Amino acid sequence: MKKINTAPISGMQELLPGMQAEFNRLKNEIARVFGLHGFQNIETPMIERAEILLAKAGGDTEKQIYKVVKTAETANTADQALRFDHTVPLARYVVEHTNDLVFPFKVTQVGRNFRGERAQRGRFREFYQCDVDIVGWNDLPVAYDAEILVTLAEAIRVLPLPSFVMRVSNRKILSGFLQALNLEMKATEILEIVDHAEKVPKEKTLEFLNEVVADAAKVEKLMKLMEIRGEREEAVAKLRALEIKNELFEVGVQELDQVLKIAQELSPETQIVADMLIVRGLDYYTGMVFETIVPEYREIGSVCSGGRYEDLASYYSEQKLPAVGGSIGLTRLFYILQEYNLVKQAELMPVDVCIVPISEAEIMTASKLAEKLRAEDKTTDIVLTNKKLSDKLKYASKVAKYVVVVGETEAQGRAFKLRNLASGEETEIRMED
Amino acid sequence: MKKINTAPISGMQELLPGMQAEFNRLKNEIARVFGLHGFQNIETPMIERAEILLAKAGGDTEKQIYKVVKTAETANTADQALRFDHTVPLARYVVEHTNDLVFPFKVTQVGRNFRGERAQRGRFREFYQCDVDIVGWNDLPVAYDAEILVTLAEAIRVLPLPSFVMRVSNRKILSGFLQALNLEMKATEILEIVDHAEKVPKEKTLEFLNEVVADAAKVEKLMKLMEIRGEREEAVAKLRALEIKNELFEVGVQELDQVLKIAQELSPETQIVADMLIVRGLDYYTGMVFETIVPEYREIGSVCSGGRYEDLASYYSEQKLPAVGGSIGLTRLFYILQEYNLVKQAELMPVDVCIVPISEAEIMTASKLAEKLRAEDKTTDIVLTNKKLSDKLKYASKVAKYVVVVGETEAQGRAFKLRNLASGEETEIRMED
Repeated sequence: MKKINTAPISGMQELLPGMQAEFNRLKNEIARVFGLHGFQNIETPMIERAEILLAKAGGDTEKQIYKVVKTAETANTADQALRFDHTVPLARYVVEHTNDLVFPFKVTQVGRNFRGERAQRGRFREFYQCDVDIVGWNDLPVAYDAEILVTLAEAIRVLPLPSFVMRVSNRKILSGFLQALNLEMKATEILEIVDHAEKVPKEKTLEFLNEVVADAAKVEKLMKLMEIRGEREEAVAKLRALEIKNELFEVGVQELDQVLKIAQELSPETQIVADMLIVRGLDYYTGMVFETIVPEYREIGSVCSGGRYEDLASYYSEQKLPAVGGSIGLTRLFYILQEYNLVKQAELMPVDVCIVPISEAEIMTASKLAEKLRAEDKTTDIVLTNKKLSDKLKYASKVAKYVVVVGETEAQGRAFKLRNLASGEETEIRMED
Repeated sequence: MKKINTAPISGMQELLPGMQAEFNRLKNEIARVFGLHGFQNIETPMIERAEILLAKAGGDTEKQIYKVVKTAETANTADQALRFDHTVPLARYVVEHTNDLVFPFKVTQVGRNFRGERAQRGRFREFYQCDVDIVGWNDLPVAYDAEILVTLAEAIRVLPLPSFVMRVSNRKILSGFLQALNLEMKATEILEIVDHAEKVPKEKTLEFLNEVVADAAKVEKLMKLMEIRGEREEAVAKLRALEIKNELFEVGVQELDQVLKIAQELSPETQIVADMLIVRGLDYYTGMVFETIVPEYREIGSVCSGGRYEDLASYYSEQKLPAVGGSIGLTRLFYILQEYNLVKQAELMPVDVCIVPISEAEIMTASKLAEKLRAEDKTTDIVLTNKKLSDKLKYASKVAKYVVVVGETEAQGRAFKLRNLASGEETEIRMED
């Protein structure tokens, strides 16, 4: 017999049933919170035309995409690929189904996406993302940016994290700032330096900026901007104190001010701060951008991020469909929660009650009892092996919280002993109850 | 601007939010029933090594498989592919995680699978399957075959179908029969004729059999076998009356008898009959096989099928891991339910309550009210556009069952009018309640 490697492909999450149950619980709770906030669930195919997926992509995305080919074809002729996020298929969906949707379209997607990244600890090639997005028709007030923040905050509360802080900026602030300083041509390099500033020592950032900007006064001003973080009023005051005469900058500051104000009204208990270090890479964002950190575990990076993107649908339609959204990367996060021992092991016993019929003659009674228990939402298993009783009880002790043995006496009397397998305590239950 | 085709790839299900909600409800209810019966949910990656997927495959499966390649590679070097069912990845999973599982392992998988079939009405290339399987260690009593039947029956009851009948056979009966008649060498052709017998006129079947078997007496006996269907006792008596002297045949009849008997005890209300026309193609089945028809809509074919497979894991392991399982093909079924107008449109309004704040000043009050409603499990949306009231109410009427307008008076008085958008009826609610 040829021995085949049975491990899952590296970069794929594969859980044992107990952990899977906990993963599912978190995923379902997050989806429930999204639903409670009025977001409608949709699912798009996992396979899309490559031209759809790559309309806007470039850089890493294009390298990481999985192409899909039927056996007879070759990769070169392949025009289909696996989706790498929920946002691009959403843009296609909204353009395709425009006439059947109500705008602003509040939408949620919870599913798997695929990226052929290099395999690394805690990096996944197949991963769940839990997304909320709001798509407007022609315009979309910034109040909806705030709603995305507070809906995601409510969803993050589902997770066993000690605390979290949402850090918000607005791309217009940095863009307007660079316009005012006549540094637009170098925006890509500068955005990258700002994006990485937290991962390198301050002197390094200074060095990089001096290299790119080559103007000490401008670099000083940039460093001053990058240091602005904190509560809304304080941050906005500091931004205004920079005295930047630029319309885009001013709009960015106003939007930031409004988003933080409305978010506070919608959810006073959530910690949402301004932070000029938030850039969100070179993605499609055009306005608000945000990340979420866990102060106790800063090293894990952002657990939830997103922003405003005004132009994504413009690749498929001439209709203006401004949007704002965000996402929780649940697979990576669940991996981290396990690493930090934050997943509760106690909840992992899969079955509530295991019924053990002594012989085949008691199967019918066992089945009737199971029906009653299931009607009360108790997950119930019946042991159907023809092994000896001790083996049946051993099985029960491995899968269930409670066990009921059904013999001739119990079947006739219609009364059963429900034994708690942890404490050994017994309770009598009757078929009629 | 280059115009891009925004339709989903053909053969992919893509639903509008209302239909998606109903699809999700059915899927979640089926998964809940599986859980109540003690089946543990697992998820395997959608991408597997091709050698895993093709260890047992052949014929159509190999032609329909989607290979997956990273952009830089070519199809020829591809060793990864999308799973085409849940059963093959399950066999790999069980072999890989043997030491961490409890046997018999009762497992459920609900997710998407992929087949690059030719596009056809009602045929999907990406489709949900809802599977239950029970995997034994060395042996697995046929009582578990019965449990698969009754668990799936309970799940089918979730669907808006008028009625259903499960048709059960056992591959050992036909195999033993062919052994006894010295027709083993022609088993493949004969199985195929039996499998298709319902789709062609009786004379055609007779013609095909005469061609392959070329022995009138044997063909007559085969036709007699193929006509056996009905309640357990009657069918078993007819099978015995054929007077086939063959051990495999005898074992098959005994197993069929026992499976039907236990299934009846576990679920007296389910219509489960013997039917010798059930073969389940040339798949990996070795014992019980079953299909499920809806008598009112026979033309839709089987809505749920499966069987016993003793040898699947043998491609990856020398440990004997006999298994039995079955599956509901939900995507195809949901498509059919829509075609027959069996999906209830009434349940498709996505949001329970839509709150309309008159101006920005009332957002905080609206948010507090939303919080209370969500705590009572009401999905609640807040309109945040700065349009005029009539536009806000128009939006509300399209997404919600109830609307609440929050103006200055309501915010101060903390009392609100909840209006039913269908009946126009109004109820007063107070923040405190």
